[in-house]
Amino acid sequence: MKIGLFDSGLGGLLITQAISARLPEHEYLYLGDTARVPYGNRSQATVLEFTTEAVTYLFGQGCDLIIIACNTASAEALRSLQQRWLPKHYPDRRILGVLVPAAEAAAAATKSKKVGVLATRGTVTSGTFDRELKVLDPAIEVVSSAAPLLVPLVEYDGLEWAEPILERYLAPLHDVDTLILGCTHYPYLKAVIRDMVGKDVEVISQDEVVPDKLADYISRHPELGGPSTQPAQRRYLVTDQTDDAVRIARELAGQPIALELVTL
Amino acid sequence: MKIGLFDSGLGGLLITQAISARLPEHEYLYLGDTARVPYGNRSQATVLEFTTEAVTYLFGQGCDLIIIACNTASAEALRSLQQRWLPKHYPDRRILGVLVPAAEAAAAATKSKKVGVLATRGTVTSGTFDRELKVLDPAIEVVSSAAPLLVPLVEYDGLEWAEPILERYLAPLHDVDTLILGCTHYPYLKAVIRDMVGKDVEVISQDEVVPDKLADYISRHPELGGPSTQPAQRRYLVTDQTDDAVRIARELAGQPIALELVTL
Repeated sequence: MKIGLFDSGLGGLLITQAISARLPEHEYLYLGDTARVPYGNRSQATVLEFTTEAVTYLFGQGCDLIIIACNTASAEALRSLQQRWLPKHYPDRRILGVLVPAAEAAAAATKSKKVGVLATRGTVTSGTFDRELKVLDPAIEVVSSAAPLLVPLVEYDGLEWAEPILERYLAPLHDVDTLILGCTHYPYLKAVIRDMVGKDVEVISQDEVVPDKLADYISRHPELGGPSTQPAQRRYLVTDQTDDAVRIARELAGQPIALELVTL
Repeated sequence: MKIGLFDSGLGGLLITQAISARLPEHEYLYLGDTARVPYGNRSQATVLEFTTEAVTYLFGQGCDLIIIACNTASAEALRSLQQRWLPKHYPDRRILGVLVPAAEAAAAATKSKKVGVLATRGTVTSGTFDRELKVLDPAIEVVSSAAPLLVPLVEYDGLEWAEPILERYLAPLHDVDTLILGCTHYPYLKAVIRDMVGKDVEVISQDEVVPDKLADYISRHPELGGPSTQPAQRRYLVTDQTDDAVRIARELAGQPIALELVTL
């Protein structure tokens, strides 16, 4: 199977590494919209427009399954995209997001039924985590906090200032027992966040949750295709190419990777 | 005259207010590419592509003179755009940037001939301030510092953390006697920066420099047109519309303004 992974930028590389390590028998095509990153503060209409272009491109490249690795795009565009590529019309094409696996893990973990969500403004405003958690368990109370400065801190060498800034963003979430890190960049902050919230709070990080959920999904959907004939194939496409992108990609992927420039 | 002002986002609103207050007899059309902001970390090719679309749009709306209020776009696209719309072929259309006025002010102010530039990574990498300052005075030595976190701090309510972050960005500029704030957002930080560098350093802020230079330019170019027949006309166009954009626009402009959504 050829699996497409889409993120607004390069933040999705970590979850891509986690997924391809868990499911090495498939081929992977990553697409980062680095010409228009970040999506977190854009309108729902614009996020849907950009994400539709990306998904159309990835299906055009022969992907069988596309993971929207960007939480903002998952929150604001996934449902519309799934309606556009309905399984009954496109039985061999599927689009998945990263919110539901995180919501499922949080619903399973919470005892107090108070779950916190730390995410971009777009994701928080969409209310998608709230809805998904309440579908799983109507008793769950969700407290969300928008954290617009965290992505720039991760991308632009600002981690030394993360703690005081996180203090403000975590303050509204003080009485939850489970905390979802609802943005593709936040796994890079999980150690500091776990330190700050203490061990009584279960921190749900998508890179630790999504690969197993995806493996399970794939095993239940053999119609999407078996192991790839080119399992070692890993390609990384971007819509803008800079020295900075190469550096960030290397840091996020944990190894140097070749970025290919494409136009959507 | 109908003056177009282009910025990658909403940061250009402050200089727009300063210019329109200094030259109230003209009509103003602001365009912020809020669907693709920020430009500061994108490649030169992408900045040129986006800025060309914006300038084409503003000329299509009848602007006689366009100010590229974004420093990154001025640094990376202005020369190409001026070549494309050569005055000899388009005698009634002109495109200006914001770097040259700031460079002129700095060249006039410096005594030690050491000038600092604080700007986005794109502007620093382009070397444009360096070149413009050396054209004015080859003896000037330029020290530049890229400050990728400052725009997010201004836009996302992060000013309380500006000082420690500025300390890192200002460190390489410790021995200059003149400092150019080379990004459209930085005037919002000029008070804290002036405090930090002390009164022996002349801080050049474009909102204080560009309006007079522009008034002088216009008086020398009567062929571009006289006072507008609709001098009170002020319109603000954006490529993406969110509640956040409305809030940021109000804060940056110092008053509520109506944003109109357009597609480039």
